[in-house]
Amino acid sequence: MRVAILGFGSVGQGVARMIGEKDLGLTVTALADSRGGIIDPDGIDIPGTFARKSKSGSCGKPRVSAMDVVASGAYDALVEVTPTNIRTGEPAITHIRKALSLGKHVVTSNKGPIALARRDLLALAAKKGVALRYEATVCGAIPIIHTLEHGLLGNEVKGLFGVMNGTCNYILTRMEDEGLTYDQALGEAQEMGYAEKDPTYDVKGLDTALKLVILANTVWGTDRTLADVQVTGIDLITPQAIQLAMDRETAIRLIGEAVPSRNLLRVSPRIIPRNHPLLVAGTLNAVTVVTDMAGELTFIGKGAGSVETASAVIGDLLYIAGST
Amino acid sequence: MRVAILGFGSVGQGVARMIGEKDLGLTVTALADSRGGIIDPDGIDIPGTFARKSKSGSCGKPRVSAMDVVASGAYDALVEVTPTNIRTGEPAITHIRKALSLGKHVVTSNKGPIALARRDLLALAAKKGVALRYEATVCGAIPIIHTLEHGLLGNEVKGLFGVMNGTCNYILTRMEDEGLTYDQALGEAQEMGYAEKDPTYDVKGLDTALKLVILANTVWGTDRTLADVQVTGIDLITPQAIQLAMDRETAIRLIGEAVPSRNLLRVSPRIIPRNHPLLVAGTLNAVTVVTDMAGELTFIGKGAGSVETASAVIGDLLYIAGST
Repeated sequence: MRVAILGFGSVGQGVARMIGEKDLGLTVTALADSRGGIIDPDGIDIPGTFARKSKSGSCGKPRVSAMDVVASGAYDALVEVTPTNIRTGEPAITHIRKALSLGKHVVTSNKGPIALARRDLLALAAKKGVALRYEATVCGAIPIIHTLEHGLLGNEVKGLFGVMNGTCNYILTRMEDEGLTYDQALGEAQEMGYAEKDPTYDVKGLDTALKLVILANTVWGTDRTLADVQVTGIDLITPQAIQLAMDRETAIRLIGEAVPSRNLLRVSPRIIPRNHPLLVAGTLNAVTVVTDMAGELTFIGKGAGSVETASAVIGDLLYIAGST
Repeated sequence: MRVAILGFGSVGQGVARMIGEKDLGLTVTALADSRGGIIDPDGIDIPGTFARKSKSGSCGKPRVSAMDVVASGAYDALVEVTPTNIRTGEPAITHIRKALSLGKHVVTSNKGPIALARRDLLALAAKKGVALRYEATVCGAIPIIHTLEHGLLGNEVKGLFGVMNGTCNYILTRMEDEGLTYDQALGEAQEMGYAEKDPTYDVKGLDTALKLVILANTVWGTDRTLADVQVTGIDLITPQAIQLAMDRETAIRLIGEAVPSRNLLRVSPRIIPRNHPLLVAGTLNAVTVVTDMAGELTFIGKGAGSVETASAVIGDLLYIAGST
């Protein structure tokens, strides 16, 4: 299967490196970042591309744009891993729409297009007889969408609860373990590279809310948007609140909750019992799925990371390759 | 899809009840337990069958045997949920072999045939162009086999670690929480219905070892048997050992471990750090899968129960229905 990769940041580099190193039956035939692109139907030299990126700052040539790569059609599946634009979903929506129109499969880690235009894009994919998959948009390496799709057939999903943002979970864990203030823990997370310079998107709960919208729409076939989610972040949590929770054998975590029967779609700091499986430490993610037959199931894994997120992208690519 | 159910204990009753209650596109056309059977191509009256079972002790008529049901061919998929025979795998192996020879799909929760004759039975299924699935043999409601099959495509699995026996986990959790001795905790588990009168199979680690063999052979395509597993149970664990582990912020759990690179296949009580995802409480099961790309993933859920195990059986049936 020939793969074109759009976006050569952490995820794009992880996907390219794994395809280069492992014998997966995948070949990268096109590649672009925001500064340039490259197309080679015989397969791109991956180590050469990394060398070019570190030397020139781009993985390709300035005269080849991302849209040129998409329009070239020199691939069977497009991997759209450009940065998420939470308001417009662009330019990823345009990239994905174009690739699907050309009859190409699409795999993405980009939350914008899936949170904003999932139904339209899936309809276009169905019309063209191709697949659109997005395992990597939620909870990094945890194959939660595959599990909901295949592993729980016949079950009615009654609710979803998740620790879906590693940055927030790291901050809360450090406040708990070391008695740090929010600002101290945030500063540490920024030093460790777990939080951005502007941490708003993570700490205000927006990243979790986007993931919750994607999961809920996937499970229940709805068209919820960010505007439907009640969102409270972790930035006002005090060391006193953390201590109070600890005194009661509980802990505070930022939880995304979706419960259709209560019309609930909420992201907020919640108190979790000490021995609940959802109570993970550090940058881990966890999702609890409540079902009618299987009961409560919890899935725990790394929510971010170059190779971990690449794992989800590659899983989707191989799933498409195996079922077409 | 027409389904025949062999075995009308906890799992068989759960499967029949769920097929009766939910609109899954499945019809039960034959049913047998050790005392009798019933065949009705138009679909069996499920509530009537439960009434007959509680009145006469059997779900069917004495002159119809389990083998009559299998040989009738009046079904598309056989659900083999008779009790596990750890030494011979019989009569389940004979049932499964016969159904496959007739070109029927088979779904089982019976560990005997899969631990003892997995490769032969899969070869027969492949030859006949039908499916043999066994999600329900390991860890109840946790869809671990589906996840390994679909959700982690492209990953190399480097190791498997699991809490796979709810009886042992309950006993160890109670020793920990209440300072009970092993005998006290076992007695309590027996009263609660979590342990058998003769608890040997669970507490000596044999049940965990069988599950480990099944998972390892599934992941790595090997032909390991129970004889390849080093097994130590939990029956010699003292309250002092439990306390010592607790003093060090750890806990003791019965862990099944499979690590091919170290040629390791072992079931034994192990010390687990307090905040490790594998450290579940009560009768829960948990499996940690260590992979090259996705890192460590942990799956937690109910390891037993009528409807929970039925969930795994029904998931397999619907997966077969959807892919054929």
